Amino acid sequence: MMTQQKKGIFISIEGTDGSGKSTQIQKILDDLSARKLDVVFTREPGGTPISEKIRQILLSPEHGEMCAETEMLLYAAARAQHVRQKILPALAEGKVVLSDRFLDSSIAYQGYARGLGACVLTVNQIATGGLEPDLTIFLDLPPKEGIRRKRIEADHTMDRLEQEDLSFHEKVYQGYLETAKQSPHRVCRIDASASVDAVFAQVKAALDQCLARWDV
Amino acid sequence: MMTQQKKGIFISIEGTDGSGKSTQIQKILDDLSARKLDVVFTREPGGTPISEKIRQILLSPEHGEMCAETEMLLYAAARAQHVRQKILPALAEGKVVLSDRFLDSSIAYQGYARGLGACVLTVNQIATGGLEPDLTIFLDLPPKEGIRRKRIEADHTMDRLEQEDLSFHEKVYQGYLETAKQSPHRVCRIDASASVDAVFAQVKAALDQCLARWDV
Repeated sequence: MMTQQKKGIFISIEGTDGSGKSTQIQKILDDLSARKLDVVFTREPGGTPISEKIRQILLSPEHGEMCAETEMLLYAAARAQHVRQKILPALAEGKVVLSDRFLDSSIAYQGYARGLGACVLTVNQIATGGLEPDLTIFLDLPPKEGIRRKRIEADHTMDRLEQEDLSFHEKVYQGYLETAKQSPHRVCRIDASASVDAVFAQVKAALDQCLARWDV
Repeated sequence: MMTQQKKGIFISIEGTDGSGKSTQIQKILDDLSARKLDVVFTREPGGTPISEKIRQILLSPEHGEMCAETEMLLYAAARAQHVRQKILPALAEGKVVLSDRFLDSSIAYQGYARGLGACVLTVNQIATGGLEPDLTIFLDLPPKEGIRRKRIEADHTMDRLEQEDLSFHEKVYQGYLETAKQSPHRVCRIDASASVDAVFAQVKAALDQCLARWDV
């Protein structure tokens, strides 16, 4: 299935908890729709029936005993299915795929914060079959500020990973900063501490640039 | 957790469907119990609450769309949890752990039969942290005969992998034969076409030899 010719565009959006991903995703979807593009929105872990079942195991607050290796392999399994059953077929049809989280989340959360290091990339190269986003929007917000924002959402129930302490989220953040440094060809780092509209202005500029390359 | 000193013995039992694993497992457990050994019996995929949930996803006949890579990574995830939460702690306490299937099943089913090859070993070295059985009992029965035996069990509902066709099971079998050749230090290949008692006589001889080495 990995031999399908890729004609569409693959965009991922990443960031620590509370960085404003959901808000920006809605604005991106509105923008892409205004451009009359055929868009598939999806998320990780999830995006297919099997991957959503894996998501339930991953995020259940009951599973406090889950080992780092198990967690990393479950994310990779969900991603392997997501790539082959949903993302690649949509790209082959020339669609724009927007995914809420992708590979960089595993590098940041399991590679950096859980301390598993380089093996996360090895396993995920098998999971993705080498697929990389054309553009990754990284909403850069220090975790202290993200957690403060999350806590004031009164009706938000925290999942297993959100329940981790500040030092865990600081390591996730460092992982994202490192990935942004190492993959400047695709990761666009955006200051997410500004207002929603100011953040989206930067997001839109990144989209414009990516879509212009696609038109050529 | 991988630094725990291993004092117990780890035995796995492998074989294609219908090779008589369940019958031999019961006889092994009776034998080990007669030797007054402290035994933990477990199975893959499974053996811990998280791994049993992964098992449900893996074996559900509803999941016909599951990709080979997803399947392989789910088995590895279940194994990573099984090793760290159940097998290693039991070995550290000096127990004898008997597992119905372990690593060799992944090599045979996903590496050989699904055609994923060497990456299965790479991923599983991360999943197991390098843990290998001290003894693997491989019940050698050609798949044609195994499938015939299974089909005459009138009340048996076949899971997703059992439902595969004969050519799939032939490849699994070739994978087991290869593994037995490549790991003679731990894999004891036993002709499973003989009577239950004749098979168990060979199994018991392998156990005697393994336990004798342990006593030293």
